[in-house]
Amino acid sequence: MSKTFPTPQDAEDAYYDAIEEQDLESMMQVWEESEETLCLLPMQPAQRGPVSIRRAWEPLLNGQFSLDIEVKHLAWIESGLLAIHLVEEQVRVAGQADSQTVYACNIYRQADSGWRLLMHQNSPTPPPPGLQMPE
Amino acid sequence: MSKTFPTPQDAEDAYYDAIEEQDLESMMQVWEESEETLCLLPMQPAQRGPVSIRRAWEPLLNGQFSLDIEVKHLAWIESGLLAIHLVEEQVRVAGQADSQTVYACNIYRQADSGWRLLMHQNSPTPPPPGLQMPE
Repeated sequence: MSKTFPTPQDAEDAYYDAIEEQDLESMMQVWEESEETLCLLPMQPAQRGPVSIRRAWEPLLNGQFSLDIEVKHLAWIESGLLAIHLVEEQVRVAGQADSQTVYACNIYRQADSGWRLLMHQNSPTPPPPGLQMPE
Repeated sequence: MSKTFPTPQDAEDAYYDAIEEQDLESMMQVWEESEETLCLLPMQPAQRGPVSIRRAWEPLLNGQFSLDIEVKHLAWIESGLLAIHLVEEQVRVAGQADSQTVYACNIYRQADSGWRLLMHQNSPTPPPPGLQMPE
């Protein structure tokens, strides 16, 4: 009973909804069921394949805190069966005032059953002007 | 007089050679001549298009210091006209003992003239076990 996503954007919406709703099963539905899948969360080792990706998301989607993510689209590239979305994520732990901005590159692949997430990669954004970085 | 790269790996080799040889012109030859190109260097703003990408690389390839990068392949995904390479870069400024490890995702696109770099994205790797991160 896997969900289908008619467009890459549908898959992307489902990905961020799963985070907001702390829903690990919905998160895993967004991913391709393939050992080629790859997930790079901030400061974590690269995870390949659904088993490792589930393990990386489990502690983040266990309902202990909720994450609020605002997404701003920076660039879309589509070519054949792949769609690449670069977005800026404004991530806030619910109840905290501060938010953190990270880049995310999401790559979707089309199959008969629709589009699924193949790769997610986070990168830090530069610090705001005037802020010193720790050595 | 642009170079052509018969495979994504040829383009990747030329990319890392250009860094090692501090050769800005060779670096720019690796990139597609397209406004869709995207470069995310560590802690820098996302750069789109050859003009911005050249501006980001200029201070790094001006011959003032040399960078030694060891590349380890982690994952390759090819689909149609796109090739995605995830690598681990071990980056060392020549003359310094310490090196830094970063992930890089390089996406190449095929055109009539061969393969060119469409996207480069760096992400930090996790700290070694036992090391505390600054708050």
